[in-house]
Amino acid sequence: MGYSEIDQLAINSIRILSVDATFNSNSGHPGAPMGMAPVAHVLFNKFMKFNPKNPKWLNRDRFVLSNGHGCMLQYALLHLFGYALSIQDLKDFRKIDSITPGHPEAHDTPGIEVTTGPLGQGICNAVGLAIAQAHTAAVFNKDGFPVVDNYTYCFLGDGCLMEGVSSEASSLAGHLQLGNLICIYDDNHISIDGDTNVAFTEDVVKRYESYGWHVVIVEDGDNDLAGIEAAIKECRSVTDKPSIIKLRTTIGYGSLLQGTHSVHGSPLKAEDIKQLKTKFGFNPEQSFSVPQEVYDLYAKHAAEGAAAEQEWEAMLAKYAEAYPAEAADLKRRQTGDLPAGWEKALPTYTPADAAVASRKLSEIVLSKVESVIPELVGGSADLTGSNLTRWKEAVDFQAPSTGLGTYAGRYIRYGVREHAMGAIMNGMSAYGTILPYGGTFLNFVSYAAGAVRLSALSHVRNIWVATHDSIGLGEDGPTHQPIETLAHFRALPNMMVWRPADGNETSGAYYVALAAKETPSIIALSRQNLPQLEGSSIEKAAKGGYVLQEVEGAAVTIVSTGSEVNICVDAAKVLAKQGIKARIVSMPCTEVFDKQSKEYKLSVLPDGIPAMSVEPMSTLGWERYAHEQFGLNRFGASGAVKDVYKKFEFTPEGIAKRAAATADFWKGVPVRSTINHAFEQLQ
Amino acid sequence: MGYSEIDQLAINSIRILSVDATFNSNSGHPGAPMGMAPVAHVLFNKFMKFNPKNPKWLNRDRFVLSNGHGCMLQYALLHLFGYALSIQDLKDFRKIDSITPGHPEAHDTPGIEVTTGPLGQGICNAVGLAIAQAHTAAVFNKDGFPVVDNYTYCFLGDGCLMEGVSSEASSLAGHLQLGNLICIYDDNHISIDGDTNVAFTEDVVKRYESYGWHVVIVEDGDNDLAGIEAAIKECRSVTDKPSIIKLRTTIGYGSLLQGTHSVHGSPLKAEDIKQLKTKFGFNPEQSFSVPQEVYDLYAKHAAEGAAAEQEWEAMLAKYAEAYPAEAADLKRRQTGDLPAGWEKALPTYTPADAAVASRKLSEIVLSKVESVIPELVGGSADLTGSNLTRWKEAVDFQAPSTGLGTYAGRYIRYGVREHAMGAIMNGMSAYGTILPYGGTFLNFVSYAAGAVRLSALSHVRNIWVATHDSIGLGEDGPTHQPIETLAHFRALPNMMVWRPADGNETSGAYYVALAAKETPSIIALSRQNLPQLEGSSIEKAAKGGYVLQEVEGAAVTIVSTGSEVNICVDAAKVLAKQGIKARIVSMPCTEVFDKQSKEYKLSVLPDGIPAMSVEPMSTLGWERYAHEQFGLNRFGASGAVKDVYKKFEFTPEGIAKRAAATADFWKGVPVRSTINHAFEQLQ
Repeated sequence: MGYSEIDQLAINSIRILSVDATFNSNSGHPGAPMGMAPVAHVLFNKFMKFNPKNPKWLNRDRFVLSNGHGCMLQYALLHLFGYALSIQDLKDFRKIDSITPGHPEAHDTPGIEVTTGPLGQGICNAVGLAIAQAHTAAVFNKDGFPVVDNYTYCFLGDGCLMEGVSSEASSLAGHLQLGNLICIYDDNHISIDGDTNVAFTEDVVKRYESYGWHVVIVEDGDNDLAGIEAAIKECRSVTDKPSIIKLRTTIGYGSLLQGTHSVHGSPLKAEDIKQLKTKFGFNPEQSFSVPQEVYDLYAKHAAEGAAAEQEWEAMLAKYAEAYPAEAADLKRRQTGDLPAGWEKALPTYTPADAAVASRKLSEIVLSKVESVIPELVGGSADLTGSNLTRWKEAVDFQAPSTGLGTYAGRYIRYGVREHAMGAIMNGMSAYGTILPYGGTFLNFVSYAAGAVRLSALSHVRNIWVATHDSIGLGEDGPTHQPIETLAHFRALPNMMVWRPADGNETSGAYYVALAAKETPSIIALSRQNLPQLEGSSIEKAAKGGYVLQEVEGAAVTIVSTGSEVNICVDAAKVLAKQGIKARIVSMPCTEVFDKQSKEYKLSVLPDGIPAMSVEPMSTLGWERYAHEQFGLNRFGASGAVKDVYKKFEFTPEGIAKRAAATADFWKGVPVRSTINHAFEQLQ
Repeated sequence: MGYSEIDQLAINSIRILSVDATFNSNSGHPGAPMGMAPVAHVLFNKFMKFNPKNPKWLNRDRFVLSNGHGCMLQYALLHLFGYALSIQDLKDFRKIDSITPGHPEAHDTPGIEVTTGPLGQGICNAVGLAIAQAHTAAVFNKDGFPVVDNYTYCFLGDGCLMEGVSSEASSLAGHLQLGNLICIYDDNHISIDGDTNVAFTEDVVKRYESYGWHVVIVEDGDNDLAGIEAAIKECRSVTDKPSIIKLRTTIGYGSLLQGTHSVHGSPLKAEDIKQLKTKFGFNPEQSFSVPQEVYDLYAKHAAEGAAAEQEWEAMLAKYAEAYPAEAADLKRRQTGDLPAGWEKALPTYTPADAAVASRKLSEIVLSKVESVIPELVGGSADLTGSNLTRWKEAVDFQAPSTGLGTYAGRYIRYGVREHAMGAIMNGMSAYGTILPYGGTFLNFVSYAAGAVRLSALSHVRNIWVATHDSIGLGEDGPTHQPIETLAHFRALPNMMVWRPADGNETSGAYYVALAAKETPSIIALSRQNLPQLEGSSIEKAAKGGYVLQEVEGAAVTIVSTGSEVNICVDAAKVLAKQGIKARIVSMPCTEVFDKQSKEYKLSVLPDGIPAMSVEPMSTLGWERYAHEQFGLNRFGASGAVKDVYKKFEFTPEGIAKRAAATADFWKGVPVRSTINHAFEQLQ
């Protein structure tokens, strides 16, 4: 092993860069970087395989900083190893429009794998990365061709362990026997409220053993570099269990306030920095100054990584000769492009086709496209038979020793763990070779809100198959009937919320969602059967909103989504009998509709005709499209679906009555389309 | 112990009622009730203290069915013990407008303590009930006067254990040494996806031991009634640890399909029911038929409960003589009324007062009212110093043995466990003697979305102190800056979302939130300082929205909330220089504003003047109040607050520019107030 002064110098350089950057920005968290610098040095310089010149090399080891507030640790490492992250970027830490934001963002900074900071997410992302590695290896590796054999390393703190989402993912990771996952728990006994003994006194070792993990303890994470190295080695040798190293460290190591929560989230004072630099043999008058030996040391490791990538590329070239189809598939997957012509697999329907629940229509889509999109890896949070997320011949993703499936399997049994499912999907997407989807009831996507917003922020593609999407689920009642859910996720930037009305729209939703390289989707699907509509098509649905039924001299436009569109069609018939002409607009995805040209949007929602929205949940946000809103600004009710719809008047008559009132109310008033605005929105 | 045929008859009666009700409704979950009938019988008939004629008796034992889908178990028990729940109510199971909805709802059904069904919530509610009991006991019990000494019992299944929120609450419950909490884990090896071995293979015993719980195993939960009784007795004897009994049961016990997931969520077939009734000695031709002996047996226990309440009332009468102040306080707390004149403690401000962050204003309110509202019990999810949720002299709620506090302490260190905090607050509120609040960043209230919606649905009063409520948090960046959060919770029925603009409005928010017996609140608070506004007051804020600055001949109304209201005031000055007159409306709580008279609302948002909203997050929903919306339909940015506001133009100039555009765009057009509608919303 043999650690010497140069190692200590590197470690102290990481610490001092973190201290300088937080001081310079007068903001940030120096404590964790100072405490974890030793393990970071050992891990990055002795074990991790990466090429800073190509941060996207497929077979690189993945690193996740689950305690993302300590990101100056990661930024310092990225800089020192030669990623495209300069000293100036460190000086711009936490400053506007920098690539070194307050918490790591995968979309903006080279070398950052996943977006972390919200506690508990990173460890789940790491589980997702490890699943993706195991799956990709099982699919692509061949005798003599270890196409992917990387590890996933994750640092996490007390906060991540306290968050329930980490429990969910850790339990699943143990079940899945993910030997390629190695976590390092920064056991520093400090959280924002002070000593962790005020709230967190569980036995972490025992807890992780209960999940089936391999657990190693290192008592002196501040100084025992050889012990850290030995622990990581030991974890790498355990291939049928994920590992966690409980590493006792001193937060803010070297500061006068080390070991206290005062160093957690505030920069060190100037004098403290002075003594620190002096103690570490640095010039106290200099800032952001790195000894050349440290750059040299890390450049050497970076060069080894570059060489390893070269070797790998050479191996891959031979692989491509032996397995041309696999090699081509692997290459394509990394671009994010789907196989040419994949969309031909999407089913289409005519009004003559039977009424089918849209969750079933979703199952049909998945069953049709799974063979043409091999990167599709699905699952459900223990609602497989309800979400209909599993195509018939799917093999489960399971450790082969269980006899329940294989790592090449493409169906994940997530258990009742919606939040972890979301965060794991984010990790899987980030790996680069997988397109994940996951099922639950729409109402329970909310359990995963923390992960869903990070999908959107980090521009990953994954899909929530969100069934039982309204009061239409019936008997399960208000505890399970979403009211606020669609408004919530429609308010989330870079998130497509789909609510298809029939078979063609379901295909349309998948058509856009599967191809959207940088945007996640939630597809809200009905429990109850829906007729195939006259006038729907994949192409129209793909515009987000379109005119389903046009009529000359309309007195009102009825805008609806999903399972209510067909009721609106019937309402129009009721209205026609009363001499009121109604247009019908189907709006399966407002986000996509918003992106159409103003001209198109005005053709759908024209001036001069009042519009009324119909959706049996919160009306919040429908004011954006319709002058009047028919919805449910209360909780639902438990009962048979027809009784629930009747109670709340989501019937042809109930809708017609309100549409007539809308036409009447706006009669004689010059009606401006909701599409017109005084100024452009910031986006 | 001595169990005999009558016990088996009672158990089978519970099973058969559950089977009949699910069959009759053609919907529901018979499996769990059939498997858990034995333990339910032992628990309810041998241990639990309750009076069906007064389901609200303070010192009753609390029962929580965390696996709420098995609610026919609970409905059957309530009926058999003589609660106001008839055979007809069982026949109306899962039917519209019944008191026996698809999952238990506390607000609607006598004897239901908390609303469950969404998995994982109930066990956390139970932790909250147990905390509330321990606290109430520590505050009110005196030598010879055990005012409250009840237990909290909770049934839960695999699903609850898989949900992360249960991990959070269980870890905290172990830390808090809640000896009055006894959970029974229905270890039936079945979830919706089939055998739990597909996703859930952790060692539950070891996991709960790691949390510091007492764990007992009962191997034959189907037949070993004496073993069940002994296990519960043992758990009751352990006073410094919560307990969990791992009870091996057979789901759907007695059905031809027992032990499979086929009995989980679908009624039994008619023939299966026939053989079941025959096997159990029931008439297969009869439904909803209960042997009189069973009613008699349970009536006896109910009578014992009624007698126990009588004794307790007598004891309380003596207590009232010895401790009149405490007795009066306890009585008042149970009504939900706050002490008379409490509102006088609320601070008020004038424009001469200093600019203060609203999180700090919130701290001032809490510090002023805590002594007059002794039922206020607060906490934070490890952000005490940031949320400012702890008044100076507060004592922590901790097990006395830790030396860190006492059970009489009113400040809870939740750890980084937002979701559990929300669910625990729901349980605490349900206990009846406590008014809980909890702090975190607004962005992380989303982690608790599952619990928040149940607060609203179950009509409990609790308060989220949600600080760092916008891009105004600055450097922490987009991972921590809420964009969709307010839209999400504004779309939730029976939830007040407050975003006060200054000191008077902060007091106004608390004025309404603290007194709202049946409605939870989220109070969104700034990190940055806010000036005290001219024209604000508690009374005006309490209307939800009001005219802060009126001006004759206004060309535009600017509607804003929280930290942007003062910028809008400055924007009006910029506009005035351009000859454009702008009214300013402050709208701290849209939900409360919605409830005002139409006349009042039209006075705030009158016809003839276009309105523009200003809030630096998703504009979704602002279309309900304003014709134009200035917001942030994208993620934020990491940087100093002034730079972030400048980047997105939330400056007097940026707002004035858009207000001018609004006035211009609507010039010459007859402007209808957004208050006018063609028809009333369903509420």
